[in-house]
Amino acid sequence: MITINENFLKLKAGYLFPEIGRRVSAYAKANPAAQIIRLGIGDVTEPLPEAVIKAMHEAVDQMGQRETFKGYGPEQGYDFLRKTIAENDYASRGASVEPDEIFLSDGAKCDTGNIQEIFGLDNVIAVTDPVYPVYVDTNVMAGRTGDCDSNGRYAKVVYLPCTAENQFVPALPNEKVDIIYLCYPNNPTGATATKEQLKIWVEYARKNKALILFDAAYEAFIRDASLPHSIYEIDGAKDVAIEFRSYSKTAGFTGVRCAFTVVPKQLKAYTKDGKAVEVAPIWNRRHCTKFNGVSYITQLGAAAAYTPQGKQQVRRIIDLYMANAATMVDSLTKMGYKVYGGRNAPYVWLKTPNGVGSWEFFDILLNKANVVGTPGAGFGAAGEGYFRLSAFNQPGKVKEAMERIAKLF
Amino acid sequence: MITINENFLKLKAGYLFPEIGRRVSAYAKANPAAQIIRLGIGDVTEPLPEAVIKAMHEAVDQMGQRETFKGYGPEQGYDFLRKTIAENDYASRGASVEPDEIFLSDGAKCDTGNIQEIFGLDNVIAVTDPVYPVYVDTNVMAGRTGDCDSNGRYAKVVYLPCTAENQFVPALPNEKVDIIYLCYPNNPTGATATKEQLKIWVEYARKNKALILFDAAYEAFIRDASLPHSIYEIDGAKDVAIEFRSYSKTAGFTGVRCAFTVVPKQLKAYTKDGKAVEVAPIWNRRHCTKFNGVSYITQLGAAAAYTPQGKQQVRRIIDLYMANAATMVDSLTKMGYKVYGGRNAPYVWLKTPNGVGSWEFFDILLNKANVVGTPGAGFGAAGEGYFRLSAFNQPGKVKEAMERIAKLF
Repeated sequence: MITINENFLKLKAGYLFPEIGRRVSAYAKANPAAQIIRLGIGDVTEPLPEAVIKAMHEAVDQMGQRETFKGYGPEQGYDFLRKTIAENDYASRGASVEPDEIFLSDGAKCDTGNIQEIFGLDNVIAVTDPVYPVYVDTNVMAGRTGDCDSNGRYAKVVYLPCTAENQFVPALPNEKVDIIYLCYPNNPTGATATKEQLKIWVEYARKNKALILFDAAYEAFIRDASLPHSIYEIDGAKDVAIEFRSYSKTAGFTGVRCAFTVVPKQLKAYTKDGKAVEVAPIWNRRHCTKFNGVSYITQLGAAAAYTPQGKQQVRRIIDLYMANAATMVDSLTKMGYKVYGGRNAPYVWLKTPNGVGSWEFFDILLNKANVVGTPGAGFGAAGEGYFRLSAFNQPGKVKEAMERIAKLF
Repeated sequence: MITINENFLKLKAGYLFPEIGRRVSAYAKANPAAQIIRLGIGDVTEPLPEAVIKAMHEAVDQMGQRETFKGYGPEQGYDFLRKTIAENDYASRGASVEPDEIFLSDGAKCDTGNIQEIFGLDNVIAVTDPVYPVYVDTNVMAGRTGDCDSNGRYAKVVYLPCTAENQFVPALPNEKVDIIYLCYPNNPTGATATKEQLKIWVEYARKNKALILFDAAYEAFIRDASLPHSIYEIDGAKDVAIEFRSYSKTAGFTGVRCAFTVVPKQLKAYTKDGKAVEVAPIWNRRHCTKFNGVSYITQLGAAAAYTPQGKQQVRRIIDLYMANAATMVDSLTKMGYKVYGGRNAPYVWLKTPNGVGSWEFFDILLNKANVVGTPGAGFGAAGEGYFRLSAFNQPGKVKEAMERIAKLF
């Protein structure tokens, strides 16, 4: 008899974004004339940079000629792109990452979801609360958690509350944990972590033989020169951390799909009887067995984002989104909202007014202002009473959204 | 302490194709003047069809304009492609598959590797021997097997030998099994299964509440009109089978990455206490949590392969590969080899001469004829004494390879 993986049955009913999609569709259907402004899901709105478009056209042409056609590429990604990443994303910031420590993939969602597979089921995972749901849900599927309680918290998971009080950077846990998911600049709160704050976590991991899974998908939005872009800017981090990056929010690749993961050669995990095992060959084996490389066309496009023109064009797009974030921070602050994030991240995290619940605030914004955001409670129990607005939209629409919200309360 | 998933340590040292790559590289380095002809890995050599190239250029242009830019698409794939697949791949053959039973992905390797995740660890899996290594290795990683013996067989896995005696279509197992991997037209043997042969398996699965994972990645190479292209051409199969398809070998997408999986709505699996659970929503949940959709550019390209021009161009490419297969079958038969496959599949499976071992034959072909093939033993113990040649190359090279092999023995 074919049995199901019963861990899937522990999952909470709806993944956050489909539920938002459902409510928005229902409202739009009932109110076809409504001009809905979407500041909910973190999806980009600006077109791909011209340098990327040009490179992709060239790649498509190459694929149409026998002499230049490319079949299966290396599962880990083409050398030209791995080298470009090592130089531009790491060496340029004084962090040493070798090209063969870089694994290209079709998304940071996939990588942050898949990485847990190569580790034992007995590891205790720690996540911030609020948190990007994929970290937790993929551990539920694997059986690393117990059941879900009425707050949406799973047994056996250590939740690290992030609130205004700790600047949304968690304190070390009281219990011992083995795998720690950190994301800075943070989704959903827009908070950043300083080198000093990350150093505390690296030291914890080194001392406890723990692993840090560092999601740096939003590093390109950092404006403050003192903030680290990579966990590897912290001494000793290569012994204890895996880092995730993405082209989704930088080069606008949400619909194109390209990301990468860094697994340092010196990173070790352990068998139950304490024998050290190199992690990189294990990840490589998984990657080569369950993945077949990123589209050549996509990789040529990603590489073009690192050319001088590409960098300038990407910067212009990020400037536009960050101007939106500034508009939101300024407008909402003037309206009297408590506002966090939005200065080094494309997300603005606000405290809902008058103790209104996150989902209630979502419904008010949708129904009264026709603005879509994301309820903080959707990211975890500690997100209740908060609300996320994304800077990914056209400046005019963001301004109009702020005008509509200003009239609300 | 961060522990490793020790199941990964059970895996045999090298995945087959990297080992072949290593031997070929070593030979090429030592013999830089050698004109090596590659008939090893199943990678295509013809460029993408013109209709696909045209559609991809259009898609890239759309991605460069704000008005037509596409961000995150549906994880399951765009409706335009799901509908096209339902009509062209299924309705046209009298098999009823709904668009929302189709899940687009970035590869059949990924899908056939990932699918096992949603089922219980207690399921007994059955694979043919020889077999595509991904089916087994992903189950080893998940912990559904025991250790590997000296023949490369894992404990707890039921191996179904496929040899010339049973026309490479296995007999029903003596023990009860829960998940059966079948691949027709077969990789590596090039064998096909008739409707009558598949019917026996569908009846077994229905009777035993087992699941068939049917890999139809090579269906486009079928020439014999009586052979089924889909498991869903067999009555009752939608209750017990998941089917995998790929654009890799049809539209030449090995370097582009697009495939799909069909999970019928009526397909059920069971909890340990016997409660029936619909499989499609579980797969959908996994797909939405660990995957973020196929590149829009790729999906527009895949859809173009179904236009009248696209179909004609794909057919022309497949005709070229199948003419290569015919060349190989004829030449090798004349040389006195026992040859299988190659008539409805791009793979020719031959018996090595004089009881020479598979890897020994590989080395002879590489060193004496500078031709790369794949040792049958690499696909499983029952593949020892067999050898795979792929039809994916230019006709002139295939003819030359045959001339070189003719001089060997």
